[in-house]
Amino acid sequence: MKAVKVGLLGLGVVGGGTWKVLTNNADEIQRRAGRRIEVVGVAVRDVQKAQGLVGDSAYVTQDGMRVVRDPDIDVVVEVIGGETLAREWIMEAIAQGKHVVTANKALLARHGNEIFAAAEAKGVTVAFEAAVAGGIPAIKAIREGLAANQIQWVAGIINGTSNFILSEMRSRGQSFHEALAEAQLLGYAEADPTFDVEGVDAAHKLTLLASIAFGIPVQFNKTHTEGISHLAREDIAHAERLGYRIKLLAITRRSERGIELRVHPTLIPTERLLANVEGAMNAVLVSGDAVGPTLYYGQGAGELPTASAVVADLVDVARAFDVDPAHRVPHLGFQPESMVDIPILSMDDVVSSYYLRLRVEDRPGVLADLARILADADISIGSMFQEPHGDNDADIIFLSHEAREGNVEDALRKIQYLPFVKSKVTRLRMEHLL
Amino acid sequence: MKAVKVGLLGLGVVGGGTWKVLTNNADEIQRRAGRRIEVVGVAVRDVQKAQGLVGDSAYVTQDGMRVVRDPDIDVVVEVIGGETLAREWIMEAIAQGKHVVTANKALLARHGNEIFAAAEAKGVTVAFEAAVAGGIPAIKAIREGLAANQIQWVAGIINGTSNFILSEMRSRGQSFHEALAEAQLLGYAEADPTFDVEGVDAAHKLTLLASIAFGIPVQFNKTHTEGISHLAREDIAHAERLGYRIKLLAITRRSERGIELRVHPTLIPTERLLANVEGAMNAVLVSGDAVGPTLYYGQGAGELPTASAVVADLVDVARAFDVDPAHRVPHLGFQPESMVDIPILSMDDVVSSYYLRLRVEDRPGVLADLARILADADISIGSMFQEPHGDNDADIIFLSHEAREGNVEDALRKIQYLPFVKSKVTRLRMEHLL
Repeated sequence: MKAVKVGLLGLGVVGGGTWKVLTNNADEIQRRAGRRIEVVGVAVRDVQKAQGLVGDSAYVTQDGMRVVRDPDIDVVVEVIGGETLAREWIMEAIAQGKHVVTANKALLARHGNEIFAAAEAKGVTVAFEAAVAGGIPAIKAIREGLAANQIQWVAGIINGTSNFILSEMRSRGQSFHEALAEAQLLGYAEADPTFDVEGVDAAHKLTLLASIAFGIPVQFNKTHTEGISHLAREDIAHAERLGYRIKLLAITRRSERGIELRVHPTLIPTERLLANVEGAMNAVLVSGDAVGPTLYYGQGAGELPTASAVVADLVDVARAFDVDPAHRVPHLGFQPESMVDIPILSMDDVVSSYYLRLRVEDRPGVLADLARILADADISIGSMFQEPHGDNDADIIFLSHEAREGNVEDALRKIQYLPFVKSKVTRLRMEHLL
Repeated sequence: MKAVKVGLLGLGVVGGGTWKVLTNNADEIQRRAGRRIEVVGVAVRDVQKAQGLVGDSAYVTQDGMRVVRDPDIDVVVEVIGGETLAREWIMEAIAQGKHVVTANKALLARHGNEIFAAAEAKGVTVAFEAAVAGGIPAIKAIREGLAANQIQWVAGIINGTSNFILSEMRSRGQSFHEALAEAQLLGYAEADPTFDVEGVDAAHKLTLLASIAFGIPVQFNKTHTEGISHLAREDIAHAERLGYRIKLLAITRRSERGIELRVHPTLIPTERLLANVEGAMNAVLVSGDAVGPTLYYGQGAGELPTASAVVADLVDVARAFDVDPAHRVPHLGFQPESMVDIPILSMDDVVSSYYLRLRVEDRPGVLADLARILADADISIGSMFQEPHGDNDADIIFLSHEAREGNVEDALRKIQYLPFVKSKVTRLRMEHLL
């Protein structure tokens, strides 16, 4: 069979990895796909450097439009990142009737609905396994492997940088800033780490996971996003002592009241597999009504793991190459006409368990007052832990049973203004997940 | 689009579950598959009982041939198990040009080559996600999600019964027979547990995993199979103390010398995720050259989890319904003409680490003699542990570095006949897996 001809937009970490995997594993890929997959054109900023890598086997240009409009090219792989050029080139590739493979979660999270609609109108595929959880085939698992299920919820550790920082904070007792500096030194965090440590990158990925889990539009702007930069090392230590680890979780859950979309630091019982995902690894836990909970684990970033997902998408495209679009797996796993716009739940209406830590004057009546406010807000306490701080104060930690977040926020506002409360109350969410 | 019409062979645990999932999730499945999936005929032994479940929506017959020859039926789901009727009916379904979905690992492990060849000749699909690791989409992950990789090895906990027994032996200090009796009481083990506890079921599944990992024929008869019935509770306790857990692992690995195919109890470092897969859960760890290690975890058996995999296969069939066969994913992930017959390595040539336990007279020179025999066989000891037994004896445990199994067996034969060795030497394999 005829080779599939690929145009590669970008030859950085992921693009270079894609080139390497396609070259090194060309025979194994052909054994699987039934045809060769060849890069014939590359668009990059630094043409000379790229020529050093690709040699004579493909042309190299600075002009992405030349690649996406090249009539010889069947599939365009977009791995430049960013939202401006990437969007223009992808939209033009679709207009030219080419399939697209992309690792660009930020672009899809913000403009996915437009991009998928254009692809459907043209009958081409936009594949994005590499956009979520790197080399782990989590998109394929949910969209195809669990197709028999009503998905109930998805909870993922899908930002390796934050997970690395949290692992270091716990195992070495570091502060956030110490662990961040180390992550930067080791190349796990960028010079500007905002997207990773403030949960934005995880939220980009979560909104894609929610779409394929529930058949809803991509809606990044409705995702509640909290990062890990405000986490204190004592909360990590307290959590550990109480049998929990803190992870930056991306959670989406379907209930009768709507869909939850939230990214935030979360206490997880230590015995759960998800609590034991350490370092820069990723894991996605998916619960379906028939299958129960399932977990997908592996490297969520990096040159070759991400390229593994890009090339898997290329093999899918190659295998189903000129199949009519109605017989392909839909972009978001649901037929376009079957997508539904279920409301996203406000955080006030989310039900979770809570970890609350506060410093109080150590005198009679304090606990009674706190307990009364919590009880009045319908918040039931599962366990409590108190230790002295200096001569006159005490630190108190409450672990609540499930409560409505709006009630917790109301109670915390009251507690915050009690005269004997001497710190800002720390409030973290806890999930038991199984 | 026209509904996909299904003939269901068997309405036991998995068949009943398939019926329930197709019924309960009919709308969600249609949203994904783009068409309805309807059971129109059922073949069972007990017609009356089946009619109680399916009502008027499908005919019920004892005659499987009626179902597989029914011209209205597009896909046959075989969930009766066994190798005689199942094989006849599947071969006839293929001859009739129907797609087949099966959960029958024993049949595929023994007759898969013949069945897949017949299906290829007829241009139909034989899908078997449910045959390995129940609801976990492990087949899809390897065959499609990791298609960019040269798979290096696969190691799985793929028999829930044995894993449940090993979990109970460890956590409750039970003997194998006590834990087996409990597993039988709880329905995790059958009255005749041989296939599960002697590793046969895991070996059936492993041979399928090896085929899709490496593109080799299905060859169950070449799989080395050891079960857990001979495991002593003290070995589980010793392993725990040394930082390991014992799991029944199914391992296949590609090296330059050939392919390993082996099922046996294995020590795994406690901090590995695989060591923490407890109870009846399953997990498959797959390492590819680009992606690195990835893990897939979930329920490996049971009515609804297994049905989840059966129905996912039906959705795949429905989505690619009348696509020409060259554009479908090949049965074993590799194009039929690209399958290769790499030799299977004999166990003597396998390289692993080893746990050795023996009882000896506690007198000078014993350790020196043992150490000399091991050194002469090129077996290097990583750690050693000795404790007194009674007044005159001692139990010694060696943990070796990697060694060739043939050398270990030679050394053990010599050690076994030393005059001061008072027990049969226990030899277990250890794998570090990452």
